[in-house]
Amino acid sequence: MISISVPIILASQSPRRAQLFRQIGLTFSVQPSSVPEEIDPAASPEANVMRLAALKAEQVAAGIPKGIVVGSDTIVVIDGEVLGKPSDAADAARMLARLSGRTHTVYTGFAVVDAGTKKNYIDWERTDVTFRRLSAEEIDGYIATGSPMDKAGSYGIQDDFGAVFVERIAGDYYTVVGFPLAKFYVAFTAFTRSLGYLKGTP
Amino acid sequence: MISISVPIILASQSPRRAQLFRQIGLTFSVQPSSVPEEIDPAASPEANVMRLAALKAEQVAAGIPKGIVVGSDTIVVIDGEVLGKPSDAADAARMLARLSGRTHTVYTGFAVVDAGTKKNYIDWERTDVTFRRLSAEEIDGYIATGSPMDKAGSYGIQDDFGAVFVERIAGDYYTVVGFPLAKFYVAFTAFTRSLGYLKGTP
Repeated sequence: MISISVPIILASQSPRRAQLFRQIGLTFSVQPSSVPEEIDPAASPEANVMRLAALKAEQVAAGIPKGIVVGSDTIVVIDGEVLGKPSDAADAARMLARLSGRTHTVYTGFAVVDAGTKKNYIDWERTDVTFRRLSAEEIDGYIATGSPMDKAGSYGIQDDFGAVFVERIAGDYYTVVGFPLAKFYVAFTAFTRSLGYLKGTP
Repeated sequence: MISISVPIILASQSPRRAQLFRQIGLTFSVQPSSVPEEIDPAASPEANVMRLAALKAEQVAAGIPKGIVVGSDTIVVIDGEVLGKPSDAADAARMLARLSGRTHTVYTGFAVVDAGTKKNYIDWERTDVTFRRLSAEEIDGYIATGSPMDKAGSYGIQDDFGAVFVERIAGDYYTVVGFPLAKFYVAFTAFTRSLGYLKGTP
């Protein structure tokens, strides 16, 4: 769908982000960064996800001569508190009980870095997510699948259980999965066009 | 994820609905109905999708001795007008140009019918969907994929192009794909429990 004249590198080990990249027809390789996902509690959620997305993309871009590197970071915020990935099953159960029957916000930042020129584009998106009230049995059943353990907020909206936990969202769905596809598509085509890399779209 | 003591039959030929059923771990067979998707312009959108969902499920249930049959119907409404499936490529182009840069509403109705007792549960869900402004090139590129032709409103939110056309939604994402998973899950477990069919959940 989008074709550019330099390699595209996804700086993320998330299989969900790779799946989203494939969904919009991108040809790319995967090279995760080693940037620690440390939240600055003094900064806003959007500042945190943009900073981490940029750090990830810049670290990978520093190691290659040319190519467009895409970094990304997603956090879940409820009552002003950031929920990252759970430390263990009990932590996941606490997070899911906290999200039950309430609305939280998912923030995803992304950074597009041109390794050759170091030019970049950084942006973010947010989506509100409302869970229906969950039973302890449902929470335990979900945790038993193992799926919550590598996910911010301990759930994936595209999971078997996640899909039936979420009553409604307000905003972009793919931001909740982990990458704001519509906003990224517009930004990526404009950025690569400005650099003379864009060969074809749509 | 849900296990019941009678067969589950999906009365739909939509591969997207079958995929959603698989996503929440249901074991089922597919038996499409032959009910014509005729909209009653004098009735509300929700009345139309519930009536068509019920007709589809009841037709299939009438032909089997036992089992739970699920019927469903999805329509797209903009400016009070219903957009069904496009008749040809030009029709699809007109629909997409009309959705461009604006908000429309997707209605999905579902009916759960017990073939043995004829008891049923019927409900519906709606979600608002906002498209960004599309170029004629993007619309033509999407139609060239063939994907719009079997879809109400001429798009699929889970498609390569559909995913980057949708700026935001307000409501349940899966209702836009074609089936309100969260609402269905709650209704289906309650309905099959009341009939004594429910063996296990979550």
